[in-house]
Amino acid sequence: MTAPISQFNDDGTLHHFLTIEGLGRETLIQILDTAESFIDVGHREIKKVPLLRGKTVVNLFFESSTRTRTTFEIAAKRLSADVINLNPLRLSTSKGETVLDTVKNLEAMHTDLFVVRHSYSGAALLIAQHMPQHVSIVNAGDGRHAHPTQAMLDVFTIRQHRPDFQNLRVAIVGDILHSRVARSQIHALNTLGVAEVRVIAPKTLLPTEVERLGVRPYHDMQQGLQDIDVVIMLRLQLERMQGSLIASEQEYFNLYGLTNDKLAHAAEDVLVMHPGPINRGLEIDSDVADGPHSLILSQVTNGIAVRMSIMAIVMGGQSTRRED
Amino acid sequence: MTAPISQFNDDGTLHHFLTIEGLGRETLIQILDTAESFIDVGHREIKKVPLLRGKTVVNLFFESSTRTRTTFEIAAKRLSADVINLNPLRLSTSKGETVLDTVKNLEAMHTDLFVVRHSYSGAALLIAQHMPQHVSIVNAGDGRHAHPTQAMLDVFTIRQHRPDFQNLRVAIVGDILHSRVARSQIHALNTLGVAEVRVIAPKTLLPTEVERLGVRPYHDMQQGLQDIDVVIMLRLQLERMQGSLIASEQEYFNLYGLTNDKLAHAAEDVLVMHPGPINRGLEIDSDVADGPHSLILSQVTNGIAVRMSIMAIVMGGQSTRRED
Amino acid sequence: MTAPISQFNDDGTLHHFLTIEGLGRETLIQILDTAESFIDVGHREIKKVPLLRGKTVVNLFFESSTRTRTTFEIAAKRLSADVINLNPLRLSTSKGETVLDTVKNLEAMHTDLFVVRHSYSGAALLIAQHMPQHVSIVNAGDGRHAHPTQAMLDVFTIRQHRPDFQNLRVAIVGDILHSRVARSQIHALNTLGVAEVRVIAPKTLLPTEVERLGVRPYHDMQQGLQDIDVVIMLRLQLERMQGSLIASEQEYFNLYGLTNDKLAHAAEDVLVMHPGPINRGLEIDSDVADGPHSLILSQVTNGIAVRMSIMAIVMGGQSTRRED
Repeated sequence: MTAPISQFNDDGTLHHFLTIEGLGRETLIQILDTAESFIDVGHREIKKVPLLRGKTVVNLFFESSTRTRTTFEIAAKRLSADVINLNPLRLSTSKGETVLDTVKNLEAMHTDLFVVRHSYSGAALLIAQHMPQHVSIVNAGDGRHAHPTQAMLDVFTIRQHRPDFQNLRVAIVGDILHSRVARSQIHALNTLGVAEVRVIAPKTLLPTEVERLGVRPYHDMQQGLQDIDVVIMLRLQLERMQGSLIASEQEYFNLYGLTNDKLAHAAEDVLVMHPGPINRGLEIDSDVADGPHSLILSQVTNGIAVRMSIMAIVMGGQSTRRED
Repeated sequence: MTAPISQFNDDGTLHHFLTIEGLGRETLIQILDTAESFIDVGHREIKKVPLLRGKTVVNLFFESSTRTRTTFEIAAKRLSADVINLNPLRLSTSKGETVLDTVKNLEAMHTDLFVVRHSYSGAALLIAQHMPQHVSIVNAGDGRHAHPTQAMLDVFTIRQHRPDFQNLRVAIVGDILHSRVARSQIHALNTLGVAEVRVIAPKTLLPTEVERLGVRPYHDMQQGLQDIDVVIMLRLQLERMQGSLIASEQEYFNLYGLTNDKLAHAAEDVLVMHPGPINRGLEIDSDVADGPHSLILSQVTNGIAVRMSIMAIVMGGQSTRRED
Repeated sequence: MTAPISQFNDDGTLHHFLTIEGLGRETLIQILDTAESFIDVGHREIKKVPLLRGKTVVNLFFESSTRTRTTFEIAAKRLSADVINLNPLRLSTSKGETVLDTVKNLEAMHTDLFVVRHSYSGAALLIAQHMPQHVSIVNAGDGRHAHPTQAMLDVFTIRQHRPDFQNLRVAIVGDILHSRVARSQIHALNTLGVAEVRVIAPKTLLPTEVERLGVRPYHDMQQGLQDIDVVIMLRLQLERMQGSLIASEQEYFNLYGLTNDKLAHAAEDVLVMHPGPINRGLEIDSDVADGPHSLILSQVTNGIAVRMSIMAIVMGGQSTRRED
């Protein structure tokens, strides 16, 4: 995964949104500020702005995800776009070539924006590389690589409550190794200048040399959560249980599940976040998920505004410039 | 199933539409009169009114029903709403808790109205109880409990042809025991002051003490249809055949299937209705379904206007007041 | 398949679009000219015209086809129609009667236009015969019978590059026997006065007495492609391989797959077309599909404009008259 430059137009404006790696602080701030302006739309009598009227947005989910697809669909419709939902699971998409034939055909229909989810890392970039200039790609999750819109809504939610990132300590807990969400969060948090980013996980669920991503690894929740300002829990993919990566659900919950007891080690006004959907009693206790520290539903709300922001920016409806 | 009060806002306007039980005559009349005003929309060049523009309606069908979902989708689009169709069958919704997580997430996206169908009685009420004030719920069928929009379109269709309910005799024929449609129809017909409501079914398909619902039970079609003004046939759920509730399809048709012979016992200008989809030759003969007395397709047409009316009213687009 | 007259209103305007057989040259030209006027819409900032605003278009695909359904959905939305997608595969549609009940119910909802795909030849005509006057039917492919919108976008694409049909030689290559696309193409090309239409296929994939359709049959690519101006490749249905109609994929490709070698026998500026989706290396070599002669993606682009044209015309948004 190289060539972050391909996310920009020649004039320096953002054209695709594939990964946070390689984006500068100004670009991220622009996305957050634009999202701020869309928060208000969700409270209006008529929740619509005409920015993408007459544009065709294609939700192209090779990997199924009702929840994420729905947020993009709502965001696009609030921008007044026409939305086409495609779930080409049944297509023989085992060959990358066939995926490209699919998107080239869709592009030939004069569609404007593809929201792509795919189980292969790099799929969104591959598609972007083969699209003509007028089509923008937004990555809605590719393999273990990146889930940049999720990371942006997460930092947006943090900023709502803790605007001073320079003094912030954030811990990400769970299966860092396989998580595209964690990877994008780490890039976003570091680019925005967060004081400290920790990852907490058993050794089997951490990448080797994880420190090179700019994080401090912990294997113990009590130590890792000490004085932390924000805890981001990851969803445990239950299929990991079948391998030898986790001993048992009960043991995982005992060691890494977020309970009020463990949370007591964090800062008093700690924020608790989770990308959803949550596994209650597995990676997070219901008392915490539904408790006063939880921002889980705020994340969902902000996801609409942040995705509106990103779609509007890459479609040229809002200007942003690459910093030099 | 208690707390019908929860269907109303504090100011007495209708906020949810979960069940007809507990609604007063004025509320039902308001729904019918508002539907009347929408009938015209279906005949216009441009079949759209702007009442719900910028609102997001979510069709949340835990139980699959293409037909009913389509009528709600068309009704919402004619009100200019944005519509999201979700069929969360694959979600692990065996625990009520997970259903609530699903709807809380959807609500966090600033959606405005959920149209809910679920195989559990009380599901729509449960969801309504956990939603914040700004979200309205319309019950599109919950288990064996209620299907109130179907009942409203049925009484609307009757009123079009027989506005004088006080002298009307209506018979509902079929599997009363398992039918949410019948239960809602009985409440609507009695609340609107129909002179007599009969139910006709074998004993195995009638609830015990069915008279307490305000109906007269019959086990014989000839007697039950005598001088009746409206016959409402219920769809026979074919899975009932596998139990011992019905001896055979042929025997059921012989005893309870609606034929022109049996219909001869009814009033000369009897109206024949069925919520659809019909099982031709099982509960109704094709000669009757397609014959001059049949209003089956009128019911479908009216379903759009009645659902527009109910969605507009609960969203505050039309005012109605709870009678004291 | 008789009664092409049923495609017209009493005043001679086109009401359904079921088959090209029986349509006159003027009608086809009117469709092509109207499509021409819609090509521009795909390049606008706001890709929408208000012709079908407030109309309800139902995509009724009894046979699944994401690609074709998407083009109709995009075309309808660019005409500002409301679109309902239905894929009634699960319905018990083995009896024609049930299909009719389905469409009669949809019609009762005051829908305006059905786009119908069905695996039975004649399904779209059957539905049209049972619809009331205000509903139009567009055939999106019925069995082996016809796929008239595909044929119209094909002749539209040819006309863009070779407006002089009188001197044009066109070859259709592949499984003519089972192809609704080929059948419609042959009618369109002959009606528009193309000089010569050839079909190239093994004997097992040609109808008996194919000459009666107005074509010249060839069994050899070198002879059939000699001096040809346009080659239309058909998609090979892989299920044919299981019968004895084709010896093997490799042998088929050797004999009938379109390669640059074989293409050298055609006119120097030959146009290569394919309705898609293509089987690379089976009926067409990637070098040809992606090469300078290929119009495959132009066909997709034109498909939107042609389907907009046909939907607008049958809905009365554009006038066309049956020639006498």
